[in-house]
Amino acid sequence: MAELPATPLLDTVNTPEELRKLKPEQLRQLADELRQETISAVGTTGGHLGSGLGVVELTTAIHYVFDTPRDRLVWDVGHQCYPHKILTGRRDRIRTLRQGGGLSGFTKRSESEYDPFGAAHSSTSISAALGFAVANKLAGTPGRGIAVIGDGSMSAGMAYEAMNNAEQAGSRLVVILNDNDMSIAPPVGGLSAYLSRIVSSREFLGIREILKKFARRLPRPFHQAARKTDEFARGMTMGGTLFEELGFYYVGPIDGHNLDHLIPVLENVRDAEEGPILVHVVTKKGKGYAPAEAAADKYHGVQKFDVITGAQAKAPPGPPQYQNVFGDALIEEGKRDSTIVAITAAMPSGTGVDRFAKAFPDRAFDVGIAEQHAVTFAAGLAAQGMRPFCAIYSTFLQRAYDQVVHDVAIQNLPVRFAIDRAGLVGADGATHAGSFDVTYLATLPNFVVMAAADEAELVHMTHTAAVHDSGPIAVRYPRGAGTGVALPQVPQRLEIGKGRIVREGKTVAILSLGTRLEEALKAAEILEAKGLSTTVADLRFAKPLDEALIRRLLTSHEVAVTIEEGAVGGFGAHVLTLASDEGLIDGGLKLRTMRLPDAFQDQDKPEKQYAEAGLDADHIVQTVLKTLRHNSTEVTEGARA
Amino acid sequence: MAELPATPLLDTVNTPEELRKLKPEQLRQLADELRQETISAVGTTGGHLGSGLGVVELTTAIHYVFDTPRDRLVWDVGHQCYPHKILTGRRDRIRTLRQGGGLSGFTKRSESEYDPFGAAHSSTSISAALGFAVANKLAGTPGRGIAVIGDGSMSAGMAYEAMNNAEQAGSRLVVILNDNDMSIAPPVGGLSAYLSRIVSSREFLGIREILKKFARRLPRPFHQAARKTDEFARGMTMGGTLFEELGFYYVGPIDGHNLDHLIPVLENVRDAEEGPILVHVVTKKGKGYAPAEAAADKYHGVQKFDVITGAQAKAPPGPPQYQNVFGDALIEEGKRDSTIVAITAAMPSGTGVDRFAKAFPDRAFDVGIAEQHAVTFAAGLAAQGMRPFCAIYSTFLQRAYDQVVHDVAIQNLPVRFAIDRAGLVGADGATHAGSFDVTYLATLPNFVVMAAADEAELVHMTHTAAVHDSGPIAVRYPRGAGTGVALPQVPQRLEIGKGRIVREGKTVAILSLGTRLEEALKAAEILEAKGLSTTVADLRFAKPLDEALIRRLLTSHEVAVTIEEGAVGGFGAHVLTLASDEGLIDGGLKLRTMRLPDAFQDQDKPEKQYAEAGLDADHIVQTVLKTLRHNSTEVTEGARA
Repeated sequence: MAELPATPLLDTVNTPEELRKLKPEQLRQLADELRQETISAVGTTGGHLGSGLGVVELTTAIHYVFDTPRDRLVWDVGHQCYPHKILTGRRDRIRTLRQGGGLSGFTKRSESEYDPFGAAHSSTSISAALGFAVANKLAGTPGRGIAVIGDGSMSAGMAYEAMNNAEQAGSRLVVILNDNDMSIAPPVGGLSAYLSRIVSSREFLGIREILKKFARRLPRPFHQAARKTDEFARGMTMGGTLFEELGFYYVGPIDGHNLDHLIPVLENVRDAEEGPILVHVVTKKGKGYAPAEAAADKYHGVQKFDVITGAQAKAPPGPPQYQNVFGDALIEEGKRDSTIVAITAAMPSGTGVDRFAKAFPDRAFDVGIAEQHAVTFAAGLAAQGMRPFCAIYSTFLQRAYDQVVHDVAIQNLPVRFAIDRAGLVGADGATHAGSFDVTYLATLPNFVVMAAADEAELVHMTHTAAVHDSGPIAVRYPRGAGTGVALPQVPQRLEIGKGRIVREGKTVAILSLGTRLEEALKAAEILEAKGLSTTVADLRFAKPLDEALIRRLLTSHEVAVTIEEGAVGGFGAHVLTLASDEGLIDGGLKLRTMRLPDAFQDQDKPEKQYAEAGLDADHIVQTVLKTLRHNSTEVTEGARA
Repeated sequence: MAELPATPLLDTVNTPEELRKLKPEQLRQLADELRQETISAVGTTGGHLGSGLGVVELTTAIHYVFDTPRDRLVWDVGHQCYPHKILTGRRDRIRTLRQGGGLSGFTKRSESEYDPFGAAHSSTSISAALGFAVANKLAGTPGRGIAVIGDGSMSAGMAYEAMNNAEQAGSRLVVILNDNDMSIAPPVGGLSAYLSRIVSSREFLGIREILKKFARRLPRPFHQAARKTDEFARGMTMGGTLFEELGFYYVGPIDGHNLDHLIPVLENVRDAEEGPILVHVVTKKGKGYAPAEAAADKYHGVQKFDVITGAQAKAPPGPPQYQNVFGDALIEEGKRDSTIVAITAAMPSGTGVDRFAKAFPDRAFDVGIAEQHAVTFAAGLAAQGMRPFCAIYSTFLQRAYDQVVHDVAIQNLPVRFAIDRAGLVGADGATHAGSFDVTYLATLPNFVVMAAADEAELVHMTHTAAVHDSGPIAVRYPRGAGTGVALPQVPQRLEIGKGRIVREGKTVAILSLGTRLEEALKAAEILEAKGLSTTVADLRFAKPLDEALIRRLLTSHEVAVTIEEGAVGGFGAHVLTLASDEGLIDGGLKLRTMRLPDAFQDQDKPEKQYAEAGLDADHIVQTVLKTLRHNSTEVTEGARA
């Protein structure tokens, strides 16, 4: 482990209360030490770095000026909250970030009263802060709602919906727009261009301008005189009109790394009698750490790294990532068919769409953080004869569920969904887990839902989706690296609704959907060693089910288990429903469904998460043996029931 | 039936192609006849009237000027499309609107090539139109995307996401903002106030101004001279900055009932070389029909009515509507507990929140068409100690699914969801059916999911939700009138996860969730008459299940069926999963699940829809008898398998 940085002043500050005892002139040193501590911690754990470094001064200033935790501070997304965690009593655990049993990489209510609202998905902060503000207003208790939201997050409709409703909160709502001209990738769209025009068209506000701007919003004693400068003050807010038209007082732009400007601006905001107020703060992602500032992604998310050189630990060589297998497979489809287009919602590299975009720049669309628009835009493209692939993580596709139902499924439009991060996701924890997609998609008429068992299957399924023109089709696959199987030279078109037998046995049938197939095969070996001949099938399709195969497996084996990386109501439930519909259960059927537990699981290494979920080979074996045992003693147990 | 209006000119126009053969000076008469025909048709069928009357001239002008269907016209929501249907070859069926087997009350792809994109939920039109525009751009084929969207629909984040991405389409995208200062209720929020300021602050554009504004966007021959007026033209667009900042050319406001203004403006838009263009058109909902203009809701949705007087057919007296039972029950909770607050997304009367708002104006929030914000705002309120009821139709809650998962369920915040229009909804058809909520909610950890069997149960469940502070809880109930049971004087707090036996028998067990209970009881009578002693249970909770009751019912009866007004993956699937988890199926279990079919059902009377779905008493009886028969012949059938 690298040497810890010297942080003499930070060592005296464990809470915002202690921070507020410092003199303003000490804050620069505190921020510098906070930055060094953040770099050191993330060097040890890996995680999100660039965003946190960009808000070191802002974090310091907010806690210095506002009355946290009574003023409810909501960090949008929350991946920029490491400095905040250090300043709010969690410095002793900061080197457990994103580890099993450690601090979350996002804000989390159960961790601290300084995290009044958890996050991880983008653009929720204004709505939540408005909730805090209005609740206090109704109760007549003090306390503001303060949202800190990035310019990238502003592209999501949800942020706009909240701004459209903000006026009711008056001065109790403060929105701090952290404009670093970056989300994970550079932001896109009209709003982003607009913000850039504001920032480039004028100087940062100086202290004099700030005071003038706030003249009319100062407390009573100053009020009368201040009214005279009102007209002038309003004139100063040129360029902020979009927010003003929605009912905000706009202040900015402010240099977000200059504490001498930040502190008086935030003090004025704090003391203002009118609102809501939007403070436009300009920051640099990765600020103050040369390797981060120099990197294209500003060290958005990093592996453990050497603090001196910035060199990140390299992943050991191994099978390719699923996202890249998808991206490359899509390029092949794109070469074959000029109507193939790809859509990502601000995740070009995470989805592999960046690869496709390099090959076909005109046929790839990054719509920003705007999953709802992404899906209906894809539906419009499909209705005009294009073959769109909408590549969205499982957890983020939740944000476009109505568009999936209303614009795609009901109209039976052939939109292809490439659903990455399906299943458990490791260090990002519960908020990023892709647990529900099979349940929420397979319940929809017209939908075809596939799950890839390995990266070769993903290539076949990408092709199958590309040539499937009769309705919507989805393929889900997990986060991370593939299993190492050889990739096919020529992808196959899979027959819709047909699974495959991977290994044939007689007594036990394991019906697998997705990448638990490896564990199913391991379990089969163990069972075989115990004298239980085991079939393993890869069902491939959660919808439509391979009814013939399932019927055969259930009726020709003594015991059957389904396994999937998803919550209740998905593949296993559909198999049970089929077995019930057809009366297969009437005469007795030893069938169990293995699925994610009915609980949100905290971050940990994926293999530990799956063990905790009971979805590994050992648990499959236990389930099979228990089911067989249950049967052999069913008379006794039946008597007990 | 009332006399049909005389429509000599309209009688000659069956398609837009025929419309385009008229002289401009004939359009006023055509529009007048189109208006009369619309009023006459809706007088016969009932349906959406005010919105259609507001766009009679706009509909005429768009089809006259643009090259539909090659130019893809997308009506947002689609309930204003009756005049459009009359002009696009469907006049002969216009008096079948919203009837079983008749025309849909919304746009629908399967009906006409002039409906390139179906709708019914709001705010999808810009995304879809952008899809059409971009697809044509990529293919190098002619054709625009034209979205007509109301000011109310503009409050949804999805519209903003689409506008933020619109610039890429250039002049191929035209957005017509139909500003009637109304959605179903008056629109709310900053954007609405902003639009009102534009309209009130200046005169409608006259012809001279229009031509000046378009000077720089005219075709080549005019271009050079026009450039000189560019600066002036830009200056004219004051007030349109919000749209301009997002990358649009803003034109307006225009009087949407003045064809002499509409036609040249749209012609200029059509011929413009730059874009995208947003045309701000001001209309009056209910225009040209005195009773509609005079009504507070502008005859948004009406029963059949007398065209002369405007008097609507009154519903026969009967049990109260579920929405009103909920609203009144919530008032009682609000009297008891000052932390109870209510949130609606632009549906105050449809959800009964209007009643609560009258009683507690400060504690009711209409956030506009903004379901995402509604849910996270509620989560923020709950995190600050309020007890929020989020009242959203089942189908619209789909639009906030990620917020339900990420902000409510993961954080286990006690947000109460009042889910109206659960199950099939009659005349509004597939797009408004609430088919998936049990599936998509019951799969989530921490959630309690209730379904009311009748209006008395809804009162109990509203109270149960009000006092349930340990996590999220939902109650679903159908559209329309209750069953007529007496409402309780004092609501009970139901035990979470406990069902009730409604009728006790020995041979057949019917496990009902929700309002199919009446049919279950009818079925029990029929079965009883056939000598089959029948238990009927109202399970009340889809999650958590009443495991003890289900275990007892399944093991003590010969045959059991579950029934619910929801799609696969919901209540029945959870019962099957329990039966499998516990090994109840191992020794044989005659259990069937009755649920909505795996198809989107078109509009019809609800009782016909449920018969079609196989969810009435007769189908329950058939299912029970078939299951018993299946068993008695299982040896034979087993041999076949």
